[in-house]
Amino acid sequence: MYRSHKNGELRIEDISKEVTLCGWVQNSNDLGGVTFVNIRDRYGITQLVFNMETDSDLCTKARSLGREFVIQAKGIVIERESKNKKNPTGEIEINVSELTILKEAKLPPFTIEDETDGGDELRMKYRFLDLRRNPLKNNLLLRHRIGLETRKYLDSLEFIEIETPYLIKSTPEGARDFVVPSRMNEGEFYALPQSPQTFKQLLMVSGYDRYYQIVKCFRDEDLRADRQPEFTQIDCEMAFVEQEDIIQTFEGLIKHLFSNVKGLEFENEFPRMTYDKCMEIYGSDKPDIRFGMEFNEMNDIVKGKDFAIFDAAELIIGINAEGAANYSRKQLDNLTKWVQRPQVGAKGLIYVKCNEDGSFKSSVDKFYNQEELAKWAEKCNAKAGDLILVLSGETDKVRSQMNDLRLHMGTELGLRDPKVFKPLWVMDFPLLEWDEETERYHAMHHPFTSPKPEDMKLIDSDPKAVRANAYDLAINGVEVGGGSIRIHDRAIQSRMFDLLGFTKEEAEDQFGFLMNAFEYGAPPHGGLAFGFDRICSIFGGTDSIRDFIAFPKNNNGRDVMIDAPSHIDEKQLKELSLALNVKKPLNI
Amino acid sequence: MYRSHKNGELRIEDISKEVTLCGWVQNSNDLGGVTFVNIRDRYGITQLVFNMETDSDLCTKARSLGREFVIQAKGIVIERESKNKKNPTGEIEINVSELTILKEAKLPPFTIEDETDGGDELRMKYRFLDLRRNPLKNNLLLRHRIGLETRKYLDSLEFIEIETPYLIKSTPEGARDFVVPSRMNEGEFYALPQSPQTFKQLLMVSGYDRYYQIVKCFRDEDLRADRQPEFTQIDCEMAFVEQEDIIQTFEGLIKHLFSNVKGLEFENEFPRMTYDKCMEIYGSDKPDIRFGMEFNEMNDIVKGKDFAIFDAAELIIGINAEGAANYSRKQLDNLTKWVQRPQVGAKGLIYVKCNEDGSFKSSVDKFYNQEELAKWAEKCNAKAGDLILVLSGETDKVRSQMNDLRLHMGTELGLRDPKVFKPLWVMDFPLLEWDEETERYHAMHHPFTSPKPEDMKLIDSDPKAVRANAYDLAINGVEVGGGSIRIHDRAIQSRMFDLLGFTKEEAEDQFGFLMNAFEYGAPPHGGLAFGFDRICSIFGGTDSIRDFIAFPKNNNGRDVMIDAPSHIDEKQLKELSLALNVKKPLNI
Repeated sequence: MYRSHKNGELRIEDISKEVTLCGWVQNSNDLGGVTFVNIRDRYGITQLVFNMETDSDLCTKARSLGREFVIQAKGIVIERESKNKKNPTGEIEINVSELTILKEAKLPPFTIEDETDGGDELRMKYRFLDLRRNPLKNNLLLRHRIGLETRKYLDSLEFIEIETPYLIKSTPEGARDFVVPSRMNEGEFYALPQSPQTFKQLLMVSGYDRYYQIVKCFRDEDLRADRQPEFTQIDCEMAFVEQEDIIQTFEGLIKHLFSNVKGLEFENEFPRMTYDKCMEIYGSDKPDIRFGMEFNEMNDIVKGKDFAIFDAAELIIGINAEGAANYSRKQLDNLTKWVQRPQVGAKGLIYVKCNEDGSFKSSVDKFYNQEELAKWAEKCNAKAGDLILVLSGETDKVRSQMNDLRLHMGTELGLRDPKVFKPLWVMDFPLLEWDEETERYHAMHHPFTSPKPEDMKLIDSDPKAVRANAYDLAINGVEVGGGSIRIHDRAIQSRMFDLLGFTKEEAEDQFGFLMNAFEYGAPPHGGLAFGFDRICSIFGGTDSIRDFIAFPKNNNGRDVMIDAPSHIDEKQLKELSLALNVKKPLNI
Repeated sequence: MYRSHKNGELRIEDISKEVTLCGWVQNSNDLGGVTFVNIRDRYGITQLVFNMETDSDLCTKARSLGREFVIQAKGIVIERESKNKKNPTGEIEINVSELTILKEAKLPPFTIEDETDGGDELRMKYRFLDLRRNPLKNNLLLRHRIGLETRKYLDSLEFIEIETPYLIKSTPEGARDFVVPSRMNEGEFYALPQSPQTFKQLLMVSGYDRYYQIVKCFRDEDLRADRQPEFTQIDCEMAFVEQEDIIQTFEGLIKHLFSNVKGLEFENEFPRMTYDKCMEIYGSDKPDIRFGMEFNEMNDIVKGKDFAIFDAAELIIGINAEGAANYSRKQLDNLTKWVQRPQVGAKGLIYVKCNEDGSFKSSVDKFYNQEELAKWAEKCNAKAGDLILVLSGETDKVRSQMNDLRLHMGTELGLRDPKVFKPLWVMDFPLLEWDEETERYHAMHHPFTSPKPEDMKLIDSDPKAVRANAYDLAINGVEVGGGSIRIHDRAIQSRMFDLLGFTKEEAEDQFGFLMNAFEYGAPPHGGLAFGFDRICSIFGGTDSIRDFIAFPKNNNGRDVMIDAPSHIDEKQLKELSLALNVKKPLNI
């Protein structure tokens, strides 16, 4: 072993011990006769001290050390004169007697500090250096901890982890698959799993009644900031259970994680809300309930007053931004511009200021008198000092726009504290959603989700009214997980594929193995999957999953550090019975 | 919850409790007035009893149950008249008052019993039914347990699990990669990792000094019985350590697993042997040391006696099959045929029987007299009753042939008890091996393995004499893991790529990121990877890893249950900028 101790562990009790430390040079400081070097590893930082008077050769060597050199230092633990209470090892230092340079280092292209001077792209290219910084290191340690506690909790409930295959079958339904050409089966392809869904259901048919897996999943989608082509799920499934059992079990998991990883206790059950209610009062199926600012539907009090925009609107929604009556004209103009951006897409924004004197000032004073605006305020529970913001239009659109505005106002007014955690179960999702573009139904969750038994009677007459036994868990406005009770009957599964526009042959070809399995004794079952990267980022208090993945891809799906993907040679292509079919010649 | 208890947990103490059980019908038995049904789940089997006199409707319903029906039964726990001590629930049965058929089942194509009547292919197609059988279920439970204990041990030593990417860069060196076409990067491909080797080394450069991951790896190789295109590794790496530290740490892991999973304690250190010694006395770098039968090199006593075959041979090896002097002529003929099969490839087999009366009977009596044969016996430590078997030829070949014969004899003589476990560290592997076909050196482990510092001087003059700081762990003749101290210096890594026939440009293009990382402060590091599937199969007492994988592929790399790989549609190919280039038209 190159070291006797790690750099985070020596304390005042260790004084006079002879120790050997290894690590990276964080920084150094020459004070004439004395040189201090801070040595860093994953566990902490320890101060080394070299004295020019007692050993000038050694001290000269210490002065030659560059940042990020890898060194080994042997010496005696002594008490520091000026203690640093912020550092756990800040009461001691090492009086070094032997110094070995294990490896020199080039000057890093950015500083290895909590706040670095490196830009995003540079840090992605030198990810191995960026990973040395505390913020990223702490993220990976947090991730490890969450994985560990997840397994501990599930193991205590007799869940067993079973690995499902990565080389599976491509199914064009849902998101786009990554495919893997098979050399041994000419012209054929595997697909990488978007989730282990069908396999975990087969495991239920096999009798493994409590399954989990922390597993990579793959989706070849156009990437956004919080998406990665490969991501990790905590994937779970249970048999002989009802929806309530699953919710209890996994609410327990999240509480266990909050308690053991964050030291936060949730005494009460997580609140629950139906999908319909969520859409009505938050315009979102993953509302951030750290703050109120709920939607108020105002059609009955604002229509019929000759304000053409409202009269023509399907839905008029008002929210109350408490204490924001002091917004300036410029702030209100900016808000209007904000909702008019194409990302939000509203035509305009109506406001009503509730003045301290009990009067109202609105952008529609021409159409609504003080008495009428008082009704608005009453509807929105607005009191003096508050600001009412109103959007109108087609139901789905205005809800979505108002959701954006609500979250924006929540952020502006400081109501979204990353240290506060508000979980919410969203229940009773619709089974299907109509897709205008393809003119057919899509499964809201996935094709294996069971309709609610009491809604089965609507499946032919009014499919979109059928609710599913499906549920999501949202925390602070982020969907961290979701699941459902599954279909376990061949006939219902087959009917579901009909509804989704599969021909019998397509359904059989792609999912025949599952429907077949259902005929050999399938237990009632259901489950859920959490986004592991998402849970980590929520626990870490940020939005970006990329900071919780050791080696992420950029928005073009590239790993710029290793430079992947890349070209492969002609021989490899030939072995795979493939030829390139590119639109423009490649610049190899 | 559909059930109050599982089928393995009710005991005599539970008598008079009202319980609800769920599971699969294992079998049933009508005894006139009474019908017994055994209900099974993952946890065990419980007997249900139905009485025709007290409730004929219910009993009739019970009689209608087919094998593998999924049922729910409510009733009272009562004491059995005839107890079954072999079954943990064998002292009680359930007097059923309510019976619900949750799902009917078609008759399975093979019996769901420990010994089934289904052939391999049928069971692979219906893997979800095969997984219901106890032997496979116990294998998956064992696998879960080993995973759990592995994490427990490594966590206790502050290893952290870090996920490395699956979509990486293709490197033609080593085994063949599976590749994944990138839609967003036209004409480019990711590769699936053959191991996370380079990433775990980067993590060492990043300072994560104790890393592990239980991770899928991929190799597109022609498959043998014990190979799968996707397999799982326990992948580990440590920094600031020497070879001895790594061996101690992971010997500790294996001892922890034996102790906690099998209840077996290893008091002493695992034996160690150099690669050279292993080849000399076992002809294998993964010898099965559950039995002796070591090689004896006999050149000095058998040459020069006019026996042309031996005189022409580079090496003559004898082994002593103890107690086998009673082998019949037919048995010896069969042994000769066995070694002459192309899989072994020996030209012939010489034997010497050491008779009880002290005389010898050999197949070369024409050339060697009794006195000379006595010397053979002395050389091989053979006593009366033993059988000496001798092969000769070119060194590498005869060692390999004799290894096959030794293992065969060990099996024939019952010396390879699957309940006995004999680990062995094989040390000091050569750094390089010469490949006759490509006429260049290959890395014996991989290109990142460090030469022994004391052998560095030979790297230019006699590369194949250079030994590596590389080690394997073999248990019972199976290589369960291996690793090495890695190169952490750009210049040495670059020299290594030269030796392996890389041009500077190829080395830079494929591994530039790693060599680059070494320049920014790389600590000395090393590690090891265990074959998780292999460890499971060894612990389970069999050779076949397939039985320890939930959904394995067959020898053509196919999953016959889901029928993958399969064709993908023209649109998908086009999106990926690919065209098929098949030799014969596809029969789609």
